[in-house]
Amino acid sequence: MSKQELPLVGVTAPSCEVTPMIRQPLTADAAIELACVFKALSDPVRLRLLSVVAGHAGREACVCDLSEGFDVSQPTISHHLKVLREAGLLSSERRGSWVYYRIEPAALRQLSRLLDITVSEAAR
Amino acid sequence: MSKQELPLVGVTAPSCEVTPMIRQPLTADAAIELACVFKALSDPVRLRLLSVVAGHAGREACVCDLSEGFDVSQPTISHHLKVLREAGLLSSERRGSWVYYRIEPAALRQLSRLLDITVSEAAR
Repeated sequence: MSKQELPLVGVTAPSCEVTPMIRQPLTADAAIELACVFKALSDPVRLRLLSVVAGHAGREACVCDLSEGFDVSQPTISHHLKVLREAGLLSSERRGSWVYYRIEPAALRQLSRLLDITVSEAAR
Repeated sequence: MSKQELPLVGVTAPSCEVTPMIRQPLTADAAIELACVFKALSDPVRLRLLSVVAGHAGREACVCDLSEGFDVSQPTISHHLKVLREAGLLSSERRGSWVYYRIEPAALRQLSRLLDITVSEAAR
C-alpha cells in the first residue's frame, strides 16, 4: 500500500509530516480528513482491535486470531477491521484462506505528532 | 483542574503516563474511556476549535474570539467547546463577561503517547 492512499497524507503536502496542531491551526479540509480518522478510533472495539494488531509480532495479525477476548461476532469484528482499514490505520492482505491485518505506522505516527504538544513545551 | 478529573487518567494507574498501544493491549475499560475522547475529536469543527485554542498565546482563548472563520452559529461553537471540555481536552474559566477555554496539555500528551509507535521502532 502506498503512502498516497493514506487519508492523513493530505493534511500536509508535500511532506508526510503533520504539523502539530499547537503550532499551526488546522485547515477546514485537513480537519474533515482527520475527523474521519478519529471517528474510526471512537469505538472501543476498534481501539482494542488496533491495539491487539499493534501488539502482534510484525504488527500484523490474522483475522482468525482477532476474535478472542471480544464479546462480539466475527462479522462485527470484520466490519470494525474494515472501518480501520478504510481510515488508513490498517492494511490487509489475503494469504490462502485468511486475511491478515497490519498496522500502518505512518498513519499512527501522523496522529501522534498532530496531538504532540511537547514540541512547544521547551519554548515555554 | 486537577489531573484526576481527566477521563484519560483512568487508562493507567497510578502513573499518568499512558502506555503506547503498541506495547500493551488496551483493556476494555480503557478502550471505552479513550473512545469517548476520540469521539470528541471526530468532528471537523471541534478539531479546528482545539487547534485554534492550542495556537493562541498561553494555549487559551476567549470564547468571543472563537467564532471567527467558522461557518456555524455561536451556540453551535459553544456546544462543541462543551464536548471538548467534557472529554477533558479543554478546561474553561469565566472571567467577567467571558468564558476562556484552555488546552489541557496532559490529555493531548496522553493521546499522542498512546498512538506513538516510535517507541518500538528503535528495537526493530
